[in-house]
Amino acid sequence: MATRADELKKAGKRLGLTPTMGYLHAGHISLVGLLNDKCDVKIASIFVNPIQFTPAEDFNRYPRNEVSDLKFLEAAGVEIAYCPDVASIYPPDFQTYVEIETLSQPLCGRFRPGHFRGVATVVLKFFHVTRCDIAAFGLKDFQQAMLIRRMVQDFDLPVELIFGPTVREKDGLAMSSRNSYLSEIERKSARALPKALEAARKLAAAGEKRAGRIVGEVRKVLEAQPSLVIQYIEIVDSLTLQPIEKVLNRAQLAVAIFVGKTRLIDNVAIGPEGDTNPIIPEGE
Amino acid sequence: MATRADELKKAGKRLGLTPTMGYLHAGHISLVGLLNDKCDVKIASIFVNPIQFTPAEDFNRYPRNEVSDLKFLEAAGVEIAYCPDVASIYPPDFQTYVEIETLSQPLCGRFRPGHFRGVATVVLKFFHVTRCDIAAFGLKDFQQAMLIRRMVQDFDLPVELIFGPTVREKDGLAMSSRNSYLSEIERKSARALPKALEAARKLAAAGEKRAGRIVGEVRKVLEAQPSLVIQYIEIVDSLTLQPIEKVLNRAQLAVAIFVGKTRLIDNVAIGPEGDTNPIIPEGE
Repeated sequence: MATRADELKKAGKRLGLTPTMGYLHAGHISLVGLLNDKCDVKIASIFVNPIQFTPAEDFNRYPRNEVSDLKFLEAAGVEIAYCPDVASIYPPDFQTYVEIETLSQPLCGRFRPGHFRGVATVVLKFFHVTRCDIAAFGLKDFQQAMLIRRMVQDFDLPVELIFGPTVREKDGLAMSSRNSYLSEIERKSARALPKALEAARKLAAAGEKRAGRIVGEVRKVLEAQPSLVIQYIEIVDSLTLQPIEKVLNRAQLAVAIFVGKTRLIDNVAIGPEGDTNPIIPEGE
Repeated sequence: MATRADELKKAGKRLGLTPTMGYLHAGHISLVGLLNDKCDVKIASIFVNPIQFTPAEDFNRYPRNEVSDLKFLEAAGVEIAYCPDVASIYPPDFQTYVEIETLSQPLCGRFRPGHFRGVATVVLKFFHVTRCDIAAFGLKDFQQAMLIRRMVQDFDLPVELIFGPTVREKDGLAMSSRNSYLSEIERKSARALPKALEAARKLAAAGEKRAGRIVGEVRKVLEAQPSLVIQYIEIVDSLTLQPIEKVLNRAQLAVAIFVGKTRLIDNVAIGPEGDTNPIIPEGE
């Protein structure tokens, strides 16, 4: 990959990267699409990154389907699929990590120790290996997106970032490779998550400023679905990720739940500068 | 710096970096010289990096002389001197660090918590900002050199490394900006450090394999000089930096002492694959 990237750079090409863990869906493909007019050569990486999974998590059973993924990427105009194996990314003596101190603490960071360190480390490595000039990340993983932006700033990385909006199923559920874990019944229960976010978005759009009230509304919608377990519901400043009491601007509602064994996350910008598009399309 | 580096890269130039904390001496200049035939444009950075000093250390009184440094660099053929200020390198929200786990623990790492994290972080930033293709580091800071090599490997950095041998004063004392702290009397006491290393080097060259015996000899020479305080004397594997009992190959003797308030470090490769040149020239 590095050799090929050097050749392309030498030829004056601008390189764009979409890092993925594979099992691709329309969300990933939308990120690739964002790079269309922004670079000469589109690269996508497929790598299920072991160091971003905590020991109790689903690294081994994370869904994989490289054959179908490669077809998807080719159809999306990706010129280079970078699919390294774990041993080449983390040889036995590997011991160097990226630590992002403050931003990795709240939200998912509280429940997934080491997760963001693993994410930041592999993203930095892939930036280096691919020599990319621009890279696309999805806002579904909102905290991750903010962390990558921080790393690029703090490490003076010569990489432009582009963030893609969350792509949703018809009923509003955010697309995620982990949705494939859901049984039919669980999948129905999971609809409460976009419903809860939409209720919060509407409430804030109607002028509710009290974070506690909005969180309460989200909790009410989620708890109406007894098969869901809430991990967190938080309203944070969308730059610092610190909790806020009043929804004035830059407010992000972030939620993590379990449906059975499957952990799902979702988020939406709320308040005066929040999302104006409904999460669940009219009529669904 | 980044803009200039991008222009040079676009013009096909190969860039070489010598990172320094300024107050330059012949050791630094020898590193610049190593880059002569290895790149098209020589860059040197001058930056006293606050985050690699522990709170009790000498950040504020670290010697500085930019005017003289720039003359030295120009005479050495350096085209670009990169001298950023602290606020531009570490803006208020800065929070992203490089952690090198195992190699940063022993030797100086035991006594300077956070030091190598600070070193690795600033070196990574300067690699990014300068877009350097090759960088020179001195073996006087042996553990630092091994850490940088590890970081380059682990982070897949497209940077070639070149390591320069320790440059010494006539009496064998390793050149260091911190030597300027020494009073005349302290400077004389400090001669025991190269003497001790030379005694160890000879002992190992004569066939002594027992690390304990060699360390004992070093201790004897240093303790003969009552104004020195030993911080550590260790013989380690020169790749892993782990302590070794038998000097078979890849053995590095590393020493840290205080002369008054001034901390000095030095090291030498000993044993069958060790240095064959005496540390103290004949007749001194």
